[in-house]
Order: sequence, then structure tokens, then C-alpha cells
Amino acid sequence: MMLQASASVIIALLMGILGVGFVLWQLRRVLSYDQGNETMRNIASAIQEGASAFLSREYRVLAIFVVIVATVITTFLQWQTALCFIVGACASAGAGYLGMYVAVRANVRTAAAASIGLHEGLRVAFGSGAIMGMSVVSFSLIGMTVLYLVFSGSPSQLTYITGFGFGASSIALFARVGGGIYTKAADVGADLVGKVEQGIPEDDPRNPAVIADNVGDNVGDVAGMGADLFESYSGSIIAAATLGAAIGQNTTAAFIGLPFLVAAVGIISSLFGIFMVIGEEADVAHSNIFTSHDLVIRSIRFLRKYVAVIDENATLEELLAALRRSVWGASVVILVLSLLAVLLSGVHFNYWLVILVGLIAGNGIAYATEYFTSYTEKPTLGIANATQTGAATTIIQGLAVGMMSTVLPVLMVAVAILLSIWLGYKAEGTMAAGLYAVALSGVGMLSTLGVTLATDAYGPVADNAGGIAEMSHLPKEVRLRTDALDSLGNTTAATGKGFAIGSAVLTALALLAAYVTAAKIDDLNILGPTMLPGILIGAMMPYLFSALTMMAVGKAAHEIVLEVRRQFREIPGLMEGTGQPDYKACVGISTESALREMIFPGALAVVVPLVVGHVLGKEALAGLLVGTMSSGFLLAVMMANAGGAWDNAKKWIETGQYGGKGSDAHKAAVVGDTVGDPFKDTSGPSLNILIKLMTIVSLVFATSFGSGWLNF
Amino acid sequence: MMLQASASVIIALLMGILGVGFVLWQLRRVLSYDQGNETMRNIASAIQEGASAFLSREYRVLAIFVVIVATVITTFLQWQTALCFIVGACASAGAGYLGMYVAVRANVRTAAAASIGLHEGLRVAFGSGAIMGMSVVSFSLIGMTVLYLVFSGSPSQLTYITGFGFGASSIALFARVGGGIYTKAADVGADLVGKVEQGIPEDDPRNPAVIADNVGDNVGDVAGMGADLFESYSGSIIAAATLGAAIGQNTTAAFIGLPFLVAAVGIISSLFGIFMVIGEEADVAHSNIFTSHDLVIRSIRFLRKYVAVIDENATLEELLAALRRSVWGASVVILVLSLLAVLLSGVHFNYWLVILVGLIAGNGIAYATEYFTSYTEKPTLGIANATQTGAATTIIQGLAVGMMSTVLPVLMVAVAILLSIWLGYKAEGTMAAGLYAVALSGVGMLSTLGVTLATDAYGPVADNAGGIAEMSHLPKEVRLRTDALDSLGNTTAATGKGFAIGSAVLTALALLAAYVTAAKIDDLNILGPTMLPGILIGAMMPYLFSALTMMAVGKAAHEIVLEVRRQFREIPGLMEGTGQPDYKACVGISTESALREMIFPGALAVVVPLVVGHVLGKEALAGLLVGTMSSGFLLAVMMANAGGAWDNAKKWIETGQYGGKGSDAHKAAVVGDTVGDPFKDTSGPSLNILIKLMTIVSLVFATSFGSGWLNF
Repeated sequence: MMLQASASVIIALLMGILGVGFVLWQLRRVLSYDQGNETMRNIASAIQEGASAFLSREYRVLAIFVVIVATVITTFLQWQTALCFIVGACASAGAGYLGMYVAVRANVRTAAAASIGLHEGLRVAFGSGAIMGMSVVSFSLIGMTVLYLVFSGSPSQLTYITGFGFGASSIALFARVGGGIYTKAADVGADLVGKVEQGIPEDDPRNPAVIADNVGDNVGDVAGMGADLFESYSGSIIAAATLGAAIGQNTTAAFIGLPFLVAAVGIISSLFGIFMVIGEEADVAHSNIFTSHDLVIRSIRFLRKYVAVIDENATLEELLAALRRSVWGASVVILVLSLLAVLLSGVHFNYWLVILVGLIAGNGIAYATEYFTSYTEKPTLGIANATQTGAATTIIQGLAVGMMSTVLPVLMVAVAILLSIWLGYKAEGTMAAGLYAVALSGVGMLSTLGVTLATDAYGPVADNAGGIAEMSHLPKEVRLRTDALDSLGNTTAATGKGFAIGSAVLTALALLAAYVTAAKIDDLNILGPTMLPGILIGAMMPYLFSALTMMAVGKAAHEIVLEVRRQFREIPGLMEGTGQPDYKACVGISTESALREMIFPGALAVVVPLVVGHVLGKEALAGLLVGTMSSGFLLAVMMANAGGAWDNAKKWIETGQYGGKGSDAHKAAVVGDTVGDPFKDTSGPSLNILIKLMTIVSLVFATSFGSGWLNF
Repeated sequence: MMLQASASVIIALLMGILGVGFVLWQLRRVLSYDQGNETMRNIASAIQEGASAFLSREYRVLAIFVVIVATVITTFLQWQTALCFIVGACASAGAGYLGMYVAVRANVRTAAAASIGLHEGLRVAFGSGAIMGMSVVSFSLIGMTVLYLVFSGSPSQLTYITGFGFGASSIALFARVGGGIYTKAADVGADLVGKVEQGIPEDDPRNPAVIADNVGDNVGDVAGMGADLFESYSGSIIAAATLGAAIGQNTTAAFIGLPFLVAAVGIISSLFGIFMVIGEEADVAHSNIFTSHDLVIRSIRFLRKYVAVIDENATLEELLAALRRSVWGASVVILVLSLLAVLLSGVHFNYWLVILVGLIAGNGIAYATEYFTSYTEKPTLGIANATQTGAATTIIQGLAVGMMSTVLPVLMVAVAILLSIWLGYKAEGTMAAGLYAVALSGVGMLSTLGVTLATDAYGPVADNAGGIAEMSHLPKEVRLRTDALDSLGNTTAATGKGFAIGSAVLTALALLAAYVTAAKIDDLNILGPTMLPGILIGAMMPYLFSALTMMAVGKAAHEIVLEVRRQFREIPGLMEGTGQPDYKACVGISTESALREMIFPGALAVVVPLVVGHVLGKEALAGLLVGTMSSGFLLAVMMANAGGAWDNAKKWIETGQYGGKGSDAHKAAVVGDTVGDPFKDTSGPSLNILIKLMTIVSLVFATSFGSGWLNF
């Protein structure tokens, strides 16, 4: 039995629709929770206004960008690709909007639910994350499958759909780079004047930048992370389908369909994992979606007995274990279902192993990240220890830890690539199959994205909930609960970053292979005339990009500082709590400066591949992409992990170690944490976008590149 | 007319002997200077003892290492390569020994000469640097040419000589990595206890680590830099000759001979440049080497009128201009003479342009480095400005400047590679010629090494002279003069580092091409099965290596701190100046810990290429080398320039800006400088060695690698 490509695509479409159904049901559920007292609702609505101000401003700029690029694509390529580009951009923007919409409403509800209990708070916050996670995978899958079906029959069907990936990348650029600048500018700006100059605590409502800071958490970790992974998810499926079409065996249709099928069963697995955290038996039993699926309900019930034991006195480890089990549970389900998918597709059994390899690598990177950034482990404790001899040794130790932390992720990705290629090669006897296997491995890694992203996007909701609890002076035990939820979110955020960069590399590699196929490059000799210059320039790009984004944070934060100082100076009674700060002004400045500062680095990511491809030729462009991918991977992991480790070293000291808060060690740790902020939340994650965007631009314009001006 | 390869080699040998003649003459001249008063002589002899203690200890470890590796080479390859390996190690060690020998004797003479005047001090210190510079090029050239002649007639003649490069690399590993750890461990250790805990000034004779610190300057910047460039110089010539033999045209002999010929005329050019700084007309006229060369004397006299105007009131810019003119002068001479060499060799005119490209790229990188690290320019001033908002912004700004500073060097190297390949390709119509041209471009870049290294190795002598002036309480104007000389040395050290990394990349690339030829690799497809894993692992190596070396500095410095504290505690009257500190104990600890800490990173550099070559195959090894080269280049430039910029930002503040010494801005700048120390003096420069050593190991063992275990 062998499934046709279109059958797989239709299954994927149906699963996407199922995912949307879940999203709508969950949305109703989350929004039905209590919003707390009036103070809480006021603060929440300020954050909501700020978020919507940012989004509407960003989407206006985006709309212009999308129109321009769509025009360029229509002019130089074809309208179908431009259409896919627009659909991709809208799908990603839609998922991001929905995620943000619910996140800035779930925060206050989480704070209110935390008044009842820890588990209740977790369920609201995680439910919000689940909406983001499932929106990303569903919108992406529906968008791609519908376009696939619309253009079915056309020989360029898959070529057009690369435009969808480009559209997704464009949104990711704005959300991740612009959002990254926004969140850190607001954070640093609020801290510099509030904590340092005025001596008021974090999340104090008197601070005019406090709302911008809270909006920033959502902008960076919900919308930014979501768009980043939307791009990886779409890119890996597109690349796999494109490379599947190039294998050129009688099973081609099955190869094209398989990535869609794996994504489709991934949605089921993710839903399973999500229910392990949020689902009450009652919910499951009464949900009209599931009423007729007794088997599903029974198996969820059976498993939940062993997994969903989150009680009021749960420690951080227990909460973490609960989230982790949901990801594991989803992984077990996907392994069973993807075996089914492989068998149904009628392709070689090796491809199931390939999916397994991707899943293991993804989880392996996440755990390695956790090891290097958690304050229960040696690396971060080493940084904490170094704070005793001052800021300089703290920085040196943190950088060394960040550099050291690249070893395991690189080895895991390298081994995953190697094994995938080998398995694919052994299955069909061609390198084309090997490259297809790499892409499929990326699809496998991302197949449970619905639930992994949920664990990640839950973090800023918990963080915001803590802020709201603080600002509205809720009882201490509520704040303790939101703090526990927040700590958990910090850990999942760190592992999420590791996962995001790992998947970005696999996706970029798959897209690169698709580019080489599409550009019809025969000779990719690493010592070819233009290859090494290409690689070197490519390796330089992440450094340039990081330098620009770090400086951008500095500039934007400076503007916030000036505005906050102005308000403290000019608004009477602000410090005494009688005057009302102008939150909107700070939100506006963060928004404007973030969008302005991202233009140059963003333009570089789009323009450099085009220039290199035309001037130095398509081989040099392949070199450029390899250089950017390898150098960017290393730099991104280094920055993200150094940042995470500094953050947690500071948190460790704040638990009372080495003199606790206010000690010299703490001051040194704060320096480390401040350096780490743009590392882990702006420059590091932005490199994921750089890597993928440069590659997808090259793929979309692949046919337009020649042999370059030097004419060897 | 066409020169035979052996004729070119003989000319190179003769020029090498001429260089040795200069070294001996200059040695007599420098040593004939006055050594100052008894205090000065005592301090100097403590430094001399410390240096010789370090060298003899290092050379003992080295001897064991060399014997082991030579045995391995004899067992798995052939005895001839092992012999060349030993000769290469001895030649590099000899040049390093001579350079150190004179540097630790010129320091006190420079201090004494500075009592007479600025120019007098410069001449002594620069004379010492010139001995290092000319020893490196002469010893390298004599060693290679003698081996070439000894093995002439053997078809594996050039293969054997790769062993010479490996020997040079081994010394460079010990000198650069071990020396880099030594110098910063002593520096940081001395500062932490002396300046911070005891509150005594820099270079205070009561500090037990002060001699180790002064020894360290020589170990790092004389022996370390010398061995690094000895390796690049030898490697580029070996690679060019090897690739020249592979072009396979009727001009093969000329291609092999040309790099030797360029190096030969480079010695003349370097001597010319050196005389522009140190030569009195009387010296030139009476020197028995030159008496019969009226033309040389006249042209030097003519040029000196325009160049050697260094008066007592010379500013830093004027001193810098004097040194710069000497490098320029040498460049002009090499361009004329290398044109002659190209014409004599009978090869295409394009090869002269290739040499020109290399020279321009080398100087271009040096100037770009200067721009990013000098406190008269915007980038460093930006860091100085960031010190006002604290240590964190100082670090962020410095890292951003370091990252930004990679752009120009990368573009210059990329363009140099591209143009060289293109010129070579156009000349012969084959890519083999293109790769030969890249190697030749590296030879061109390094052809004036005799003088560029002189400007560099002069720095630590001036630095030491300042320390001696301080410790022996010389009059203030002497200290001002040595400070001026020292500042100049800091600038040339920064540009020297840029030059060293640029040449390391070109050399490594040339060696890589030679490896690919030697390993008989046909298919180097960048999407080949093992290539990308190789590239990723390769890109990770510099991060691992840097993490290890940074941590090594921390550990070694910690041991020094404990010893210095012990001495202050246990030696009666030490703080009052009546007790005698045990300098040797600190020198011993620095030596032992540096040599111990370098073992693991050093072993990695040798073992990883062998493991990857055998397990993943020779193609993956090529990928590994490309990954290490590109990622290492970026990281090295970033670290070196960030370190240099932080250092100079601190110096700028110490001139009285932003509150001057002791202000909060200064404290933040000190944090930056301390982070920068291991960046610019240990980890950054060590990457040059990593890049070249991994490549030369691969080249030497090229024939032993197969297709790996996975068997595609």
C-alpha cells in the first residue's frame, strides 16, 4: 500500500483543521477564566494596549515590506510565488497575532488562577502557550497544504511554495529581530532608570517603562519565538518535499507526501502531550471534539495517571518534570504514528530511523542547553563562583562556558546529519536521498513543535503574571506561586532557544540542499574558485549581524532612558504614586526604535545573498550559506547559553549564596546578566533568522543566479 | 631566461646566510650598549634568569614531544619527514631562543639609552626586534633550502619538507599557547594581589610576581609571535612550492623556485626597511657587509633623508610614522625586486600581481586593525564612552566593536583569495594554478616579515624597559620616553596580531590546498555525505580551544595569586621593602602551570584531525579544516581586536578623560581590559596556531587517510 502525495497532503490539511479546532476551543477556555480585581484588569489592559500598539505598528511596516517584496518576486520570478509569499507572511503573522492576543489576556488570568493554586495557574499559562504552539503548526500546515492543492498539476508547484517559506521568514525577521531589540531595549531602559537611578523595584507601576517591559516579554518570547519556529517548521517541510521530488524514483510521490504526513501525525502527538498538562478528565470527557474517540480518551486517562501529578507543593523540579513528560509523551506517540506514516507511504524503513534521529537530536540539544544554563549544574555554578573575584572574571568564565557549551549541540547536529545522510543513502543508493533524509530529520525534530512551543510560549505569560501580581499587590503566596511558574518558564525558555537554533541549522541545511538542486549547481568543490571567499564572507555575516543588533539594543535603550528620566522630571507626583506615568510614550519609543534599528541588519540578510549570487555566482552563494550556517550556529549557541548561564548564576546568588542580593558577588553577577541580556534575547536568537532567511532568499531566487562576473 | 628551481633555492639560501650575518652584527651592536646602573642590571638579570628558566623548561618538554612525534612519523610515514620535522622544530626554537636572548638583554639597554634620548632608545629596542625578525626569516629559509638541496633528486622531496612546517608548528603551539597562558597568568596574578589587594603600583619590585610578569611579555610577544610567524612563513613557502609542483606545466621548476626567490628578495627588502629605522649613515658606511655596495648605501642615504626624522620631541604619531615608513619602504623594494624575480623565473606577469595582492591585503588588515583598536578612532572612543554607564555596557560595546572589526579583514582576505585564484587561473587556465597563486599571495604577504616582525617584537623590549626604569627609580623624563616607546609597541602589537591572523588564514588555505592535492581527493562537494558534519565540527574547534585556553589562564593565575599571597604573608619585611621576594617561585609556577594547561588543547589540535581523517574520511577532514579556518579567523580577529580596543579605551581614560584614573568610568574600563587580556594575548592568537597546526598535521599525514568508516 502506498499513499499518494495528495492523499498525505489532504490528511495534513485535515489535521491542521483539527489543530485550529483545538485552538478555538482552548481560546474560549482560557478566556473564560477569572480576570481578578480591578487593579489587575487595569494593568492587564495597559499591557494589552501596548502589545496591540506594537503589533499594529509592526504589521503596518510589514505590510509595506510584503508588498514591495511581492512586487519584486512577481517582476523577476512569477506571481504564483508572490502569492505564496503573501500567504506565508499572513499565516505566520496570524499565528503570532493570535499567540500574542491570548498571551496578554492569559497573564492576568494566570495571576488570578494562582490565587487558587499552583496547578490552576500552570493550566492557564500553559493553555495560552498551547494556543501559540498549535496555531503555529496548524496555520503553517493549512497554508502549505492548501497552496499545494491549489497549484497541483503545475510542474513548478513546489517551487511556488518556497515563497511560503520566504513569507514566513520575513515575519520571523520582524518578530525575532525587531522584537528582540524591543524587548531588551525596554528591559534595560526600565532597569537603568528604575532600579539603578530611582531605586524602585522591578515591575513597579511608577516606572513609565514597566508596561513596555511587560509587553516586551510577549513580543520577544511569544511572537518572536513563534515566528522563528513557524519559519523552521515550514522551511523543513518545504525543503523535504522539494528534495523528495528530486530523488527521482518511482516512489517520488511518497517522498513528497511523507513530510506532510509526519507533520500531520505530529499534530495528534502534540495534542496528546498538551492534554497531559492541561487536561482534566472532565475536560476530555466533555469536549465535543473528542466524545466519539473513546480510545483517545482512555489512553489519555491511562497515561495521565502516571504523569499529571502536580500538587500545590510541587517543586521547580516537579513542575519541570511535568512539562518534560508532556514532551516525552508526545515523542513516544509521534514515534508510533510516524512508523505508521512510513509504512503507509511505502518508503524504506530507514526513513523512520531518520525521524527518530531528528527527534533525539532535538531533545538532546535541549538537554545539553539545560545542563549548561541551569544553576543546579557545574557550568553555571562555576560562573557564580567567579563572581567572587569581580565582574571581569564573571564575564570571562561566562564566555568560556558559552563557548564550551557549543560542543555537544554541534556534535549532535553533526551526528544527526551524518546518520540521516547515511540512512537515506543506504535506502536508495543516491546522495539525493541522503539530503532528503536530512530534511526529513528536521521535520522529525519539529514534528512535536505544537507541544514544545507550548512549554516555551507559556514562560512570558507566567512572567507577566508575576509582574501583575507585584503591581497589584497580591498576597505573598500568590507571588511565590507565580515566581515558581516564572522560574520554570526561564528554564523552558533556555531549552527552547537551544531547540530553535538546532532546528534552524537542520532547516537551513535542508533549504541549502534544495537551493543547490534548484540552482542546478553541478560542481560544489570546496576549493572551487569562488567557494572559499564565499564561505569566509558567510562566516563573517553572523558577527556583523550580532554587532549591529547589540548596538541597536544600546541605542534603543538609551532613548527609553531619556524618556523615563523626562517623565520622572516632568510629571508631578510620579515618584510618590500620585501622578500617572505615560506608559504609551515608552511603548511607542520602544516600537519605533526597534523597527528602525532592525532595518539595516534585516536588509543585509536579504541583500547580501542576492549580491553574492549575482556578482560571485551561484557556487559562491552556496559557500556563503555554508559559512553563515556554521559560524552562525556556533555564535548563536554561545551567546544564548552564556546569556542563560549568567542569568541563572545571578538567580543562584539571589537565593542567598555568596552574600546574596546586594553583595559584591551579586553586583558582578548583575554585570554578567546585563551583558547576557542582548546575547540571549536579541543577538543570539536573531542569528536563527539570519541563517534561514539568507538560505530561503537564495532558494526563492535560485534560478536567477549565473556564474558571476569573474567568469571562471 | 628561466631560473631553475635549484638556482632560486640557492639564491634563497645565500640570502638566508646574509640575514644571519646581519643578525650576528646587530647582536654585537645591541649588546655593546650601556647596561645602566647596578639596580638596573640586577633587575635585568632576574628577568634574564626567569626567561631562561622558562625556556629551558619549555624546551625540555618540547624535546620529549619532538622525539615522540618524530618516532610516530618515522613509524607511519618515513624517516626523511621526521628529520625535516626535527630540523623545523630546531630552527624555530633557535630563532625564538635568539630573539628572547637578545630581548631580555636589550630591555635594560633600552632603558639606559632612553636616558640619552628617545631616538637612541628606539634604536636599541628596534634593533632587538630586528634580530628576532631576521632570525625568523633567515633560519626558516636556510632550513628549508638546505633540506630541499639535501633531498634533491628524490621525487618526494617536497613531501618530506612538509615535516619542516609541522616542526615549526609544534614549536609555535608551545610558544604561542603555552606562552600565551604564561604571560596572562603572570600578568593577572601580579595585578590581582599587587594592585588590588596590596595597593602597590604596577612593576613594583616588592611584588613577587613582577619578574614573571616581565618575563611573560617576552614569552608572549617575542617568542610566541615569532614562532607563530615562523610557522606562517615556512608554511606558505612549503605550500606554494608543493602546489607549484602540481601545476604540471613545463614551467613547473620555475613555479617551485618562485616562492623561494620571493622570500630571498624579501630578506633584502626587510634589511632595507630595518636600516631606515636603526641605521646611522656611519653604520651603513662602515659596515663591512655593505662597503662594496655603493648603490645600496646611496639609495638608503637618499631615502633616509625623507624618512628617518625622529627627534627628541617626536609624538606617538611621528614615531609610528617612522616605523610605518620602514614597512612601506620595504614594500616598495619588494615590489621592484619581486617583479625581477617573476621575470627571471619566466612565469606569467600575473604572478607579480598576485604578490602585490598579498602585500596589499597584509597591510590593509594591519591598518583595519589599527583603526578598530586605536584610541584616536571612533570604535575605541565608543567603548570609552560606554564606560560611563558601567562595566556591562563597556563589555557589550567592546564585543560589538570586536565583531564589527571582522568585516574588513574578512573582505580583504576574501578579495585577496578571489583575485589570486583569478589571476593564477587566467595565467594557466587551471584551478591548480589558481590555488598556487593563493599560496604565492601568502608568500608575498609575508615576504617583508623581517621588518614587520621587527616592529612587533620591539614592543615587549620597550615595555620591559619601562618596567626596569620604574623599578630602578630612573628620572621621570626617562620613564616618559620609555612610556612613549611602549605606547608605540602596543599599537604595533595590535597591528601585528591582525597581520599574524591574516597570514595564518592564507597559509592555512594554501596548506589545505596542498593537503587536498596530497590526499588525492577528487570530490570535495560541499554537500558530500561527510563534508557538512566535518565543517560543523571544524567550526566548533576554535570555540572549544578558546574556552579551554581562557579557563587555563584563570587556573594558572589563581595559582600565582596563592603564591604571591603566601609570600606577602610569610616573608618578613616584604611590604616594607626590606625583605627579598622569591621571584623564581612565581616564574616556576607560571612555567609549570602554562605547560600543564596547554597539553589538552594542544593535543586536541593534533588528535582531532587524525581522528576525523580516519573515522569520517579524508573529505570530512577537508571540511573540518575549512570550518576551523573560517570560524577561527572570525573568532581570532574578534577577540584580538576587542581586547586591543578595551586596552586602549582604558589608556584613553587614563589620559584624564571621563574622570581619569580612579573614576567609575576607569573601573569599568579596567573590567573591559581584564576581560580583553586573555582575549588578545592568549585565546585569540592561539587560534592562529590551531588553524595552521590542524592543517599541517593533515598535510603531513595526508596519504594515510581513507574514505572513513561509514563507507559511502
